[in-house]
Amino acid sequence: MYRVLYPLRTYLIISGNKEKANIMTADWVVPLSFKPFLLGVAISPKRFSHGLIEKYKEFVVAVPSVEMLKDVWIAGTRSGYEKLKEMNITFVDSKKVSTPSIAEALANIECKLINKIKTGDHDFFIGEVVNVSYDKEFFEKGKPNIKKKPLAHIGENEFVSFEEKIYKA
Amino acid sequence: MYRVLYPLRTYLIISGNKEKANIMTADWVVPLSFKPFLLGVAISPKRFSHGLIEKYKEFVVAVPSVEMLKDVWIAGTRSGYEKLKEMNITFVDSKKVSTPSIAEALANIECKLINKIKTGDHDFFIGEVVNVSYDKEFFEKGKPNIKKKPLAHIGENEFVSFEEKIYKA
Repeated sequence: MYRVLYPLRTYLIISGNKEKANIMTADWVVPLSFKPFLLGVAISPKRFSHGLIEKYKEFVVAVPSVEMLKDVWIAGTRSGYEKLKEMNITFVDSKKVSTPSIAEALANIECKLINKIKTGDHDFFIGEVVNVSYDKEFFEKGKPNIKKKPLAHIGENEFVSFEEKIYKA
Repeated sequence: MYRVLYPLRTYLIISGNKEKANIMTADWVVPLSFKPFLLGVAISPKRFSHGLIEKYKEFVVAVPSVEMLKDVWIAGTRSGYEKLKEMNITFVDSKKVSTPSIAEALANIECKLINKIKTGDHDFFIGEVVNVSYDKEFFEKGKPNIKKKPLAHIGENEFVSFEEKIYKA
């Protein structure tokens, strides 16, 4: 029944450090505060990334486009570092955390873990955003450009992006 | 900078009870657990709905479509019960909570408040979902139908829905 809230945006969560990083897919990501800029990510304790975030107390939320669909799917369905060999992503240094960013992503949001709350079968990691880098064609004048096709998840292996028509209230 | 996570889905949060209910718009809504089905909503303490949820310890998350754009805008930009007179929504009884649902919405997710966490300039209300009702044309076989045009928020007065093309991973 939780899919009644879908489609939800899909993001990539990077954990670990410069020497060894992992990537998972997450739909359960939410802004939590303007000032400070906080966001939350719900992650199952079963996920490999869960332990890495607990260990390094940092993570990066990367914003994929439709072009990264294959990588999003591999990151979301397979566990452990081995999957990275089949993905077409390039790790680049982040600015304020040692967890790397993803060069191909529309944006990379660098977070320092400030709290973790148990929520049912998941843990909710709350991060303070310490740096944001982005593709200037995607994020212009404080607004996302939907023509760059940010990705959303319908369910299972089905994804979608946004129509170009903008409705003005 | 938080808009780098956008477009995000937009929902309506109903608070209060059968006699007197209020509606606000919220983009910061996220599933938190499969079993039990939990969700979270970040709400500023400045919002009138914040006090109502604290008081009644229940709320409903309604899923609007593009057709409800005007109501979404009024609910998100004006405070207090007066705005309801200008909105074209019909309150109907919820099944498991005394906070009403919205007849025109694609779905109504009834929640009992189980926790509240301070997150920067917002409070994060965690609800356990006790009932979900939905338009059968929107939610079929556990999957949302994007042809019913669920609404997402780009920023300011700009909203968008999804393109019909489905990308299969």
